[in-house]
Amino acid sequence: MLIKEIREEVLEANLELVRRGLVLYTFGNASGISRAEGLIAIKPSGVPYEKLTVADMVVTDLDGKIVEGTLRPSSDIETHLEIYKHFPTVGGVVHTHSEFATAWAQAARPIPCFGTTHADSFHCQIPVTDELTSAEIANDYEKNTGIVICRLLQNLDPASIPGALVTGHGPFAWGASASAAAHNAVILEYVARMAYYTVSLNNEAHPISRELHDKHFMRKHGDSATYGQVKA
Amino acid sequence: MLIKEIREEVLEANLELVRRGLVLYTFGNASGISRAEGLIAIKPSGVPYEKLTVADMVVTDLDGKIVEGTLRPSSDIETHLEIYKHFPTVGGVVHTHSEFATAWAQAARPIPCFGTTHADSFHCQIPVTDELTSAEIANDYEKNTGIVICRLLQNLDPASIPGALVTGHGPFAWGASASAAAHNAVILEYVARMAYYTVSLNNEAHPISRELHDKHFMRKHGDSATYGQVKA
Amino acid sequence: MLIKEIREEVLEANLELVRRGLVLYTFGNASGISRAEGLIAIKPSGVPYEKLTVADMVVTDLDGKIVEGTLRPSSDIETHLEIYKHFPTVGGVVHTHSEFATAWAQAARPIPCFGTTHADSFHCQIPVTDELTSAEIANDYEKNTGIVICRLLQNLDPASIPGALVTGHGPFAWGASASAAAHNAVILEYVARMAYYTVSLNNEAHPISRELHDKHFMRKHGDSATYGQVKA
Amino acid sequence: MLIKEIREEVLEANLELVRRGLVLYTFGNASGISRAEGLIAIKPSGVPYEKLTVADMVVTDLDGKIVEGTLRPSSDIETHLEIYKHFPTVGGVVHTHSEFATAWAQAARPIPCFGTTHADSFHCQIPVTDELTSAEIANDYEKNTGIVICRLLQNLDPASIPGALVTGHGPFAWGASASAAAHNAVILEYVARMAYYTVSLNNEAHPISRELHDKHFMRKHGDSATYGQVKA
Repeated sequence: MLIKEIREEVLEANLELVRRGLVLYTFGNASGISRAEGLIAIKPSGVPYEKLTVADMVVTDLDGKIVEGTLRPSSDIETHLEIYKHFPTVGGVVHTHSEFATAWAQAARPIPCFGTTHADSFHCQIPVTDELTSAEIANDYEKNTGIVICRLLQNLDPASIPGALVTGHGPFAWGASASAAAHNAVILEYVARMAYYTVSLNNEAHPISRELHDKHFMRKHGDSATYGQVKA
Repeated sequence: MLIKEIREEVLEANLELVRRGLVLYTFGNASGISRAEGLIAIKPSGVPYEKLTVADMVVTDLDGKIVEGTLRPSSDIETHLEIYKHFPTVGGVVHTHSEFATAWAQAARPIPCFGTTHADSFHCQIPVTDELTSAEIANDYEKNTGIVICRLLQNLDPASIPGALVTGHGPFAWGASASAAAHNAVILEYVARMAYYTVSLNNEAHPISRELHDKHFMRKHGDSATYGQVKA
Repeated sequence: MLIKEIREEVLEANLELVRRGLVLYTFGNASGISRAEGLIAIKPSGVPYEKLTVADMVVTDLDGKIVEGTLRPSSDIETHLEIYKHFPTVGGVVHTHSEFATAWAQAARPIPCFGTTHADSFHCQIPVTDELTSAEIANDYEKNTGIVICRLLQNLDPASIPGALVTGHGPFAWGASASAAAHNAVILEYVARMAYYTVSLNNEAHPISRELHDKHFMRKHGDSATYGQVKA
Repeated sequence: MLIKEIREEVLEANLELVRRGLVLYTFGNASGISRAEGLIAIKPSGVPYEKLTVADMVVTDLDGKIVEGTLRPSSDIETHLEIYKHFPTVGGVVHTHSEFATAWAQAARPIPCFGTTHADSFHCQIPVTDELTSAEIANDYEKNTGIVICRLLQNLDPASIPGALVTGHGPFAWGASASAAAHNAVILEYVARMAYYTVSLNNEAHPISRELHDKHFMRKHGDSATYGQVKA
């Protein structure tokens, strides 16, 4: 897809965050990338969602230089760019301060896979980054936030772990497109919410078995997936 | 009722899950059976609820063979079929990943009967299955999920216990029809939510007495029920 | 007011419970009394709220004998009648299974007055009844539920304590009219919710001082009340 | 701005509290001040939000004497006035009984800064007042509530700490205008909610580092702020 179309998809992905209750006021942001053109489209900084138009989506190159649009991009753009550079298969990135995912991030706890809802979308626990050092905060803070996320995932396929938590901050999610990233951010919040209830009910709750985890993830992902309809 | 009508009721039962906040995206599924015809109607796999039409409801025989409809049935169809085969009085089955019922399932805890809301609809605690074994997961996973549910209920009347929890997965509910099953799924979630709050407030909370439990269940069920209006 | 008008107010009070999220399906009921006529109007049993009309409100005398309407009254009518007989100043009664108030009832804990929201409407903690005995459950169960509520309040002014919890069941609220009773049921749920969060945050949380409690209650009640507008 | 315009903004600020779910029935109130005129506009006492008009906003001088409007001002007006007098840069004040902020107030716990959502808006923890003494409650209660809030902030810039909790009561928030105060009240509630979930997940959760706290606060406040768009 070309950035012209992606810009529209990015607007829609941002609005999906509102529809699903993941953002308050101007919190959060979604972006998408045209790998062919080396351009991304991202939400502008601090503009209320209800006023956003396609033309407000800021288009930049992979150095963050604005090539289209009159507004400033999201203050988190450098984090998005770092994720795009590190993972060539990622097509969209979303950041929110959604309530339960942020609570796990603030509690500095990874989210264990307590059930098949989690296993359907994440092939492992949802990890949480280390704290950024004082030096990482002082200079290039937003870029360093992206670096700690990428370090956390190491060489894993981002499709098998489409989101992570930044300690003391909140969740980032990604996917093959901006809309897939938004979808994953919504599911991450849902999984975080149910995991919260689960540990409240049973502080000793244990993750599901590897076999069950694989079974569910593989029903929805990969060549042998059986979930959903055959693509036309 | 014939499958033609049941198909409409199944669509409505699926939409009821959306209206009551029990499902996210394509999560969950409802089905209904025509005992006379030996056919069931069930939600198609992975289709967003807002796009569902009656014609999308997949009709299959009791072996899961599609006899009407162009879409794949829900990936959980084998679980539904197992429940229909085991319990001849069940007319509808619903599966969701609703938040609180799923949390109890993930915590691997049965839901005690803490109050009359529970007693009005369930004649005992809401039980939770054992974990499936590796072998049960490896082959015929969805069918085996149905088998562990039926084993859990043993020879109980499914009308006296219209739902159960699958460990590490989520709730299944059933009833005399697809709409009754959806209704029971909604109540199960409501009961799960209040039971969650109850144990948070009092970790030693104890179930209501057998007498009170019976009194409330019998006000609503059986020949001497007094709740509601006289059927025309 | 005459029962003709009260019937309309009772319908509105029932619908207020829906608007405020206190009831699911056919749960809950509101009634009002015409002291002059010795008649009450109450929600019919088991009829969905969205279908209720004024004509559906059942009018009975104080023995529960139907004098107007073609439907069965709420199965809880005997509890309402008991409260009306015991407290001559009560003009309306509401019963719900609202989530947080019911959780406190299921946990068998009275709700301490942790803050001014509570103090504005209740002049003491919100008490919880003893369990009904087997004998009280076996015969005249609904009437006995009313009796344990009245016993709980003893000789207190029902205006100073406009609601209470029935152990293992849920809240009842009352007021000078059906709409006041519904209003108090909504506030009781709100207070129950915040008290739940409070004890979760601080298991040793203590009630506010008697002075602060009185100050707030008296700002809103009695001859020296200063809250609100001067009545025309 | 003149009080004529502020009156309209105060109405809007009050309605924003409804839209964001911070108030029930007639709970809560927002006000704004015209420093040039020495006048404030405030919500009337006990009037339902859905009926509020601009003309209902009560205009008083800094002694609380009504200069425009036919209704009684909010019963909390003396608290608002005290805050305006103490902090010359405050242009709007909001008081609510929003659920989570009130729960922290009832638990008598300050809200630690667990994450960047908090740090974006508050430059320190959200403090909680001491209990008012019996003497402070007996006379000039509402004014004394303002005094304990101002004492709590000491000589801090109210822009760096735009809200606080009154023990056993609830939150107050403020800002450069009535709409900014409402905005801060909404964020305070959101932060309180996530902090609640955080301590539930990890009772030993610790605040974010001073460096991270400063970094986020300074991205949004002060001369070197980078968040949002360049003002025209």
